[in-house]
Amino acid sequence: MTDNTDKHAEHVYADAVEIAGGRLIRTQGVTSPAGFRGAGIRAGIKASGNPDLALVVNEGPDLAAAGVFTTNKVKAAPVLWSQQVLASNALRAVVLNSGGANACTGPGGFQDTHATAEALAAALSNWGTDTGAGEVAVCSTGLIGDRLPMDKVLAGVEEIVHELAGGISGGTDAAYAIMTTDTVPKQVALHHADKWNVGGMGKGAGMLAPALATMLVVLTTDAVATAEQLDEALRGATRMTFDRLDIDGATSTNDTVLLLASGASGVTPNQDELNAAVLAVCDDLAAQMMADAEGVTKRVTVTVRGAASESHALIGARTVARDSLVKTALFGSDPNWGRVLAAIGIAPIELDPDKISVTFNGRPVCIDGVGAPGAREVDLSGIDIALEIDLGVGDAEVSIRTTDLSHAYVEENSAYSS
Amino acid sequence: MTDNTDKHAEHVYADAVEIAGGRLIRTQGVTSPAGFRGAGIRAGIKASGNPDLALVVNEGPDLAAAGVFTTNKVKAAPVLWSQQVLASNALRAVVLNSGGANACTGPGGFQDTHATAEALAAALSNWGTDTGAGEVAVCSTGLIGDRLPMDKVLAGVEEIVHELAGGISGGTDAAYAIMTTDTVPKQVALHHADKWNVGGMGKGAGMLAPALATMLVVLTTDAVATAEQLDEALRGATRMTFDRLDIDGATSTNDTVLLLASGASGVTPNQDELNAAVLAVCDDLAAQMMADAEGVTKRVTVTVRGAASESHALIGARTVARDSLVKTALFGSDPNWGRVLAAIGIAPIELDPDKISVTFNGRPVCIDGVGAPGAREVDLSGIDIALEIDLGVGDAEVSIRTTDLSHAYVEENSAYSS
Repeated sequence: MTDNTDKHAEHVYADAVEIAGGRLIRTQGVTSPAGFRGAGIRAGIKASGNPDLALVVNEGPDLAAAGVFTTNKVKAAPVLWSQQVLASNALRAVVLNSGGANACTGPGGFQDTHATAEALAAALSNWGTDTGAGEVAVCSTGLIGDRLPMDKVLAGVEEIVHELAGGISGGTDAAYAIMTTDTVPKQVALHHADKWNVGGMGKGAGMLAPALATMLVVLTTDAVATAEQLDEALRGATRMTFDRLDIDGATSTNDTVLLLASGASGVTPNQDELNAAVLAVCDDLAAQMMADAEGVTKRVTVTVRGAASESHALIGARTVARDSLVKTALFGSDPNWGRVLAAIGIAPIELDPDKISVTFNGRPVCIDGVGAPGAREVDLSGIDIALEIDLGVGDAEVSIRTTDLSHAYVEENSAYSS
Repeated sequence: MTDNTDKHAEHVYADAVEIAGGRLIRTQGVTSPAGFRGAGIRAGIKASGNPDLALVVNEGPDLAAAGVFTTNKVKAAPVLWSQQVLASNALRAVVLNSGGANACTGPGGFQDTHATAEALAAALSNWGTDTGAGEVAVCSTGLIGDRLPMDKVLAGVEEIVHELAGGISGGTDAAYAIMTTDTVPKQVALHHADKWNVGGMGKGAGMLAPALATMLVVLTTDAVATAEQLDEALRGATRMTFDRLDIDGATSTNDTVLLLASGASGVTPNQDELNAAVLAVCDDLAAQMMADAEGVTKRVTVTVRGAASESHALIGARTVARDSLVKTALFGSDPNWGRVLAAIGIAPIELDPDKISVTFNGRPVCIDGVGAPGAREVDLSGIDIALEIDLGVGDAEVSIRTTDLSHAYVEENSAYSS
């Protein structure tokens, strides 16, 4: 992932980047692949009046799909519903709302999700696309614990099907409508040289952690692919991207990542090509989420190398990425490497304190467990910080994306529900 | 522990509290038991000029002792040294410095610790108390990664033996000299009705977490007890107190808790009495550390009950106590119980989302996984918050002490080393 990360850094300033056999462009999203339409409207769910209802529809010819969901044992109603829908492997549409998570809402909340899917299926059928409720996934994001204003949700569902559009506008409208504490919409499309495409949109700014960051992500492709092929591509990509984005160690009740394939390009990429394209899109969305995380002032990559295994490297990197004392030091642009040693020392992994070396932005600050000359003078005043830890006991390596712990994070999260 | 906690809350406003067959008094500390002298001086280790060198000496007749140390695999030089000293079970003195952790300092740092013990043993021998370096434990606290100014440490060791005093003053001076970001010294003494005593002092305000909060604690008793009896009392007490204090999930390289017994009272309590007294002193010191934690604006107790086992209850309570989104909500006096559900849902323990109930300060906010009426209106504006989670799957219960995550925590920790 190191190469990709470097390219993304560059990509922020460029129009497109060449990767995975295609070109990645951030001004396009889920309606960039052929066969997809999208929309985003103001349904009145959010008190702010901002856009809060999004829709992505697959017009086929294929309705193949795959999904990955939160590992939290407390799952929101829309997650329970969409898991059932995905079991059928035919997915016509995804309807997403911000302004409320519909989590911890009991049987009534589940009925609300079901009613939303029924209403959307009816509206799409009336509009000319025959759809069953069992082909409609539902995603929700916002405050946990309150029922949704169903009068507004159902009226919005009626209205939104009339706003469906392809090209750039439909996907962009949808990307705006799923934002919560996000400050910018997050979307990207990859145009493969072989004339097929992958598009994606995501939201996620806080409660971002292991086994899926708190996020909703919808990915689309016009490639021809089976549900099994999509599943392999999606699981491989999430494992390397969203699962390695850890802002605050918290995992949402609502995490959902969906991949829909229309087959409209008529092109059948091989599995490796599909994997690479989906990975590139997910990696870019994960980078966008890191860059817009709640209270972020530093974009931090924690790399653990020289670990006994990939699992050890991952646990080590995650432990450091979650450490409040490391994160506050980085907020202060303070090269306080001793806190990195203290953090990695509590990770339940194989390590030898006398073999650990640490660099900040490539500058050695600790060599074989002891401070390096000039360690306290390393300049961390820039936005991007690469923290690398070499354990010196093996050859496995993993990187985790995280951020600093800032006043803005505390401010934003101490005033969210009230 | 619930009863003890209640008594402590009351104890803040009272001169003494009856507990464990004796009276607990916070104006006395390690030199309250017979047979101990203490001192604290300004040795010039801290740039601020504040007291930074402390000494506790056991004048016997017994030199029994026990110790518990950090579980961090990256251990400071004084921890490695003191672990060796404790293996002999005879402990004459403990010398402690603030102003530097002497961690990640390599073989040179270990030699510094050894030289400190040698110098103190020589100074005590000159002063008339025959002492070997192997009977001197060393503790250090402060910034990780720098060598100590040994000229100042060794000169301070020469000087401090002349300042040794019993009664109240010696222990109080020592308690002041081990402070780092602590704002108040922490000490307490328990006077048992059977004419024996336990005293203690501690420091610890940040990097406070599992398997010992980041802390130095020295406990003394004039009871007659073997090293084995002291060890049982100390391990039992730390497991129930310091191990259940979790401010920020970080574990220091320097955590040390020592218990020294002089036998000077001539009284031999039974094991249960000894356990109870040591537990009461540790519990009180843990409460003092919570109340003075870095950036604290709320003193929070997270209780998980109805768990399948004590281990499950502990993991659940710790997971919630560490959750940044729960902690920032509490800072904002926001009864955002949905974050509590999201947090407990990622704990690797047995639970049924539909059986979880939550109370804030005794007010139900979630019943069987669904919000309770009036949940958003619960008043959390006070300093003390009791967060109780009933899993409804068993009968085990554990409480963890923690704090909120405030602007002051971020401020203090983003500017510590620079």
